[in-house]
Amino acid sequence: MNKIELKSLLADRTLGTPTGQVVRLLSERGALSAAQIARLSGLAKSTVSTTLSDLRRSGVVVETAEADPARTGGAGRPATMLSLNPDAGTCVGALIGLREIQVIVADVSHAIIASHTEVMDEDYSPAEAADVIRALVRRAYREHALSTAGLLGVGVAIAGPVNPRDGRIQRASVVPTWAGTDVREVFGPLFQRPIFIDNESNCAALAEMMWGAAQGHEDFVLFKIDLGVGGAIVHGGRVLTGVAGGSGEFGHMTIDPTGPLCRCGNRGCLELTASFKPFLRLAQNRFRRALTPEDVIDMARDGDVGCRRLIIDCAEAAGHGLGIIGTIINPPLVVVSGRMVRAGDLLLEPLRQSFERHTLVKNDDVPPESRTRFVPGRFVENDSVLGAVGLVLRHQAYAPV
Amino acid sequence: MNKIELKSLLADRTLGTPTGQVVRLLSERGALSAAQIARLSGLAKSTVSTTLSDLRRSGVVVETAEADPARTGGAGRPATMLSLNPDAGTCVGALIGLREIQVIVADVSHAIIASHTEVMDEDYSPAEAADVIRALVRRAYREHALSTAGLLGVGVAIAGPVNPRDGRIQRASVVPTWAGTDVREVFGPLFQRPIFIDNESNCAALAEMMWGAAQGHEDFVLFKIDLGVGGAIVHGGRVLTGVAGGSGEFGHMTIDPTGPLCRCGNRGCLELTASFKPFLRLAQNRFRRALTPEDVIDMARDGDVGCRRLIIDCAEAAGHGLGIIGTIINPPLVVVSGRMVRAGDLLLEPLRQSFERHTLVKNDDVPPESRTRFVPGRFVENDSVLGAVGLVLRHQAYAPV
Repeated sequence: MNKIELKSLLADRTLGTPTGQVVRLLSERGALSAAQIARLSGLAKSTVSTTLSDLRRSGVVVETAEADPARTGGAGRPATMLSLNPDAGTCVGALIGLREIQVIVADVSHAIIASHTEVMDEDYSPAEAADVIRALVRRAYREHALSTAGLLGVGVAIAGPVNPRDGRIQRASVVPTWAGTDVREVFGPLFQRPIFIDNESNCAALAEMMWGAAQGHEDFVLFKIDLGVGGAIVHGGRVLTGVAGGSGEFGHMTIDPTGPLCRCGNRGCLELTASFKPFLRLAQNRFRRALTPEDVIDMARDGDVGCRRLIIDCAEAAGHGLGIIGTIINPPLVVVSGRMVRAGDLLLEPLRQSFERHTLVKNDDVPPESRTRFVPGRFVENDSVLGAVGLVLRHQAYAPV
Repeated sequence: MNKIELKSLLADRTLGTPTGQVVRLLSERGALSAAQIARLSGLAKSTVSTTLSDLRRSGVVVETAEADPARTGGAGRPATMLSLNPDAGTCVGALIGLREIQVIVADVSHAIIASHTEVMDEDYSPAEAADVIRALVRRAYREHALSTAGLLGVGVAIAGPVNPRDGRIQRASVVPTWAGTDVREVFGPLFQRPIFIDNESNCAALAEMMWGAAQGHEDFVLFKIDLGVGGAIVHGGRVLTGVAGGSGEFGHMTIDPTGPLCRCGNRGCLELTASFKPFLRLAQNRFRRALTPEDVIDMARDGDVGCRRLIIDCAEAAGHGLGIIGTIINPPLVVVSGRMVRAGDLLLEPLRQSFERHTLVKNDDVPPESRTRFVPGRFVENDSVLGAVGLVLRHQAYAPV
């Protein structure tokens, strides 16, 4: 079976044949055992076995070295893990960030082949982005001696709301130079392949769900604390988009209607107190030199009381916002991500306490399994671009954006 | 076909036979034409036609007088509308309110047969509620010469979060005397029928979705302004429950962390400014006599500037809370309900303006179809108890609570 056939199998959304179902499951999940495939697909074990034999014979599916985590430490020999043949196809993920462009090339076995980042001037245009992405993708394919004929699709993560109806970038004030852009029109002609687009925080949530801290969870909230505050709501395994692509914009909850002006045009937004933004400025005033987020966290860990207090203040503000999210959504799981999470329990402990103070359902009111759990995210800097790869691997299977 | 057979058809969740599918659709939707049944079920028109003939012959399905609204005013003769035979079964809906118990008896054609309300002392017990509900149901069945043998199930709406895992009432501080109660244990022995339970606001959202302002919508937010503020989030046609049943508790968003104490034990909750609560107290001070919510709305409509300002203040506070909900969820539709909606545009206009000021995605940023729409709810006082009937008609078909 050649690459063209795999492409058509992945694009087939009728979910009809067992072959289609097995290929889509492996595309979505990476390496799986035959038993896992049977459980996840609902197909009979014998059907899975026959289908896998055919797919292995034709070279679409191969054995991998990865062990089945469920069997590790248990009795019996470990199950054989299978994945799509890495040679059978590649995906490109790209992040259109505020000041950088990231590109990742991965194969259909979920292995990352190449990763490149380019720093951009602020307010770069879609045409400049297209040039940079084309160059980064060419370089990655050349360096790894890959053929672009095997490219299955391109996922694009965007720093701003994407309209779920037409894929256009919205909300002029957040990414002014990209307002109204249809990303598929920009990147479609470059690649001649399906283009999948979503907001960067929605992509980050997808990455945590597919490979990170939310693996195995279908309902959770991603809350990201970095230079701004972002996030996403996942319900039933799908990221909520909102009618205008504006769902999960936690950083712009109006905490203080008469507070300082935010870049979004509103006043007193959560991210003005619950991100690195005020935090870096205050730390720089204290030490009278330019500091990175990492510097401040390092100094806090080394015991500087001022930096510790700044992290606690950020955690308390974030906990207020999360308390409101808890009162509205009452999620089972919150994945806290972004560079602020590198502060570890210095951040998470006061954040949990502040959440508990502000949210409606208190821990003491409910049994442990009905409490909202907090976990740090697995990915810090490449979550969105990984999720862009995930858009191709998952949305190819179910529904294009 | 007798009542027992209809019961088993409604309880059959395998969605297997066309007969089962048609019966479940009519149970969920009320009156439908054959063409609507074909569209909603995906069954072939010929299959629907044969199935309906069989069901009509056996008396499970009957013609109704109700016209197909899609055909009204159009050309051609109106389509025949069909419903389940009203004689084939009844449902009971009950509301366990803070100071009252409501009971509705409806038949499977969605017609309301009887409705009764009993005012209760504050902090009444589950045993007292069981006595009152048994008496009200007996009275309704006796007055309308109905046999309880046709009772298909009982839906119960509760003023407080219900744990979605075990159906127990949570959050001791909201309904202290009911904390930890398993409603199925209280009402199950009374009726020997399936008991369906949900929070009163979730039931209200179901009523608006099945028969009210959100008919035909699968994604919306219900925002209820009355003596308190409540609500629900509907996504993909299902009400979000949250891990502890706490989803949609909009009245308890912490707006001012150092504000006055709320009955929930937190400070500065939204409902302290965005409900009738502060409003009635201020109006009573102004007029030096006891006033009902309706009095204040009437005086505002008659031009009293003080009462008008109170409604505007309430709308602005509610718009701030809704602005946060918009930033987090970005819903296509908000159904505003509760008695405050009787103020009409006196409330809705400033509410929309305040929402627009505080939410992230502004109307001017997006095309009209990507804006959040606001509509008043259809039901004011009986929404929760109607939704409790809806729990039986819908959950019987899909999944018990």
